Amino acid sequence: MANCITIPEAMKFCSKCGHPVETRIPPGDQRPRAVCGHCGTVHYENPRVVVGCVPEWQGRILLCRRAIEPRRGFWTAPAGFLEIGESMHAAAARETDEEALAQVEVGSLLSVVNVLHAAQVHVMFRATMRGERHGAGAESLETGLYAEAEIPWDEMAFASVRFALERYFADRRAGLERVHFHDIVR
Amino acid sequence: MANCITIPEAMKFCSKCGHPVETRIPPGDQRPRAVCGHCGTVHYENPRVVVGCVPEWQGRILLCRRAIEPRRGFWTAPAGFLEIGESMHAAAARETDEEALAQVEVGSLLSVVNVLHAAQVHVMFRATMRGERHGAGAESLETGLYAEAEIPWDEMAFASVRFALERYFADRRAGLERVHFHDIVR
Repeated sequence: MANCITIPEAMKFCSKCGHPVETRIPPGDQRPRAVCGHCGTVHYENPRVVVGCVPEWQGRILLCRRAIEPRRGFWTAPAGFLEIGESMHAAAARETDEEALAQVEVGSLLSVVNVLHAAQVHVMFRATMRGERHGAGAESLETGLYAEAEIPWDEMAFASVRFALERYFADRRAGLERVHFHDIVR
Repeated sequence: MANCITIPEAMKFCSKCGHPVETRIPPGDQRPRAVCGHCGTVHYENPRVVVGCVPEWQGRILLCRRAIEPRRGFWTAPAGFLEIGESMHAAAARETDEEALAQVEVGSLLSVVNVLHAAQVHVMFRATMRGERHGAGAESLETGLYAEAEIPWDEMAFASVRFALERYFADRRAGLERVHFHDIVR
């Protein structure tokens, strides 16, 4: 989840021909876009998708303490940017492998959080660990398995992950697997 | 759903400083990225999110016949790119207003389709029309309300929308509102 709270930087030059772009509303559009004054290319910027999961092992949850900014030293569930050519389920499993060195079976959809100020959508799944093995990947300082009562709520890195964990435990107590939506604006 | 089957064009110039970019794997990364040889900016490209809904009015479903490429003349449910600063629910309602001049209450999540060859995720919701009024927006040739038996299955524009509609009717018959995942690779 690198670069997690930055919005796309304003485009200054056309990525296709290298000439300066101007900001204007193209014909038939309703929003200002970066448009190349030389080749006419319209450069659309859209939200990015961050995908992760809540990995469970014998009732406990796998968390990672972040080794990178933003929110270095704070705790999160494994999550990161969806890559081109990758399904959401595959991304959740890959991020868990990279950040927590753990293998998971990705389960049902847990939460979709529109992080509006960051131009991101954070999508979290339930997941089951295939074994107890875990450890700190390159982006983590440490990893740990936490019972609900042990979760470091005051040291969570991201509101979207806190939201997902709260709903995870509430649903687990109720014996349900629901999908939860939430909007965050700083 | 303009530009719906195109993948992001390869970046040739840095959008921040206008110098040529090169393709290489940045330190700590696992994938080739466009990196500026002048200012060092790494330009990440990620899938874009298309959001839409299946609007229902008294048992019938609102569809639009596309006035634009790709798939001009074929039928779709209202859908389009999620914009920065916009929630998924807001995007589904906006696209329905723009493409079919209809007002909807967006309901439960219906389907999430990873359209891998297009670098897109297509997210569809159930929705209820607030009234019978509908009509062709700028991107539609016509709109219509269809009973299940009347859906023009052989003239559907996109596999992701066909998937959503099939699951919509199956769930409605079963009295369920489930979330369905699917991957499409051309």
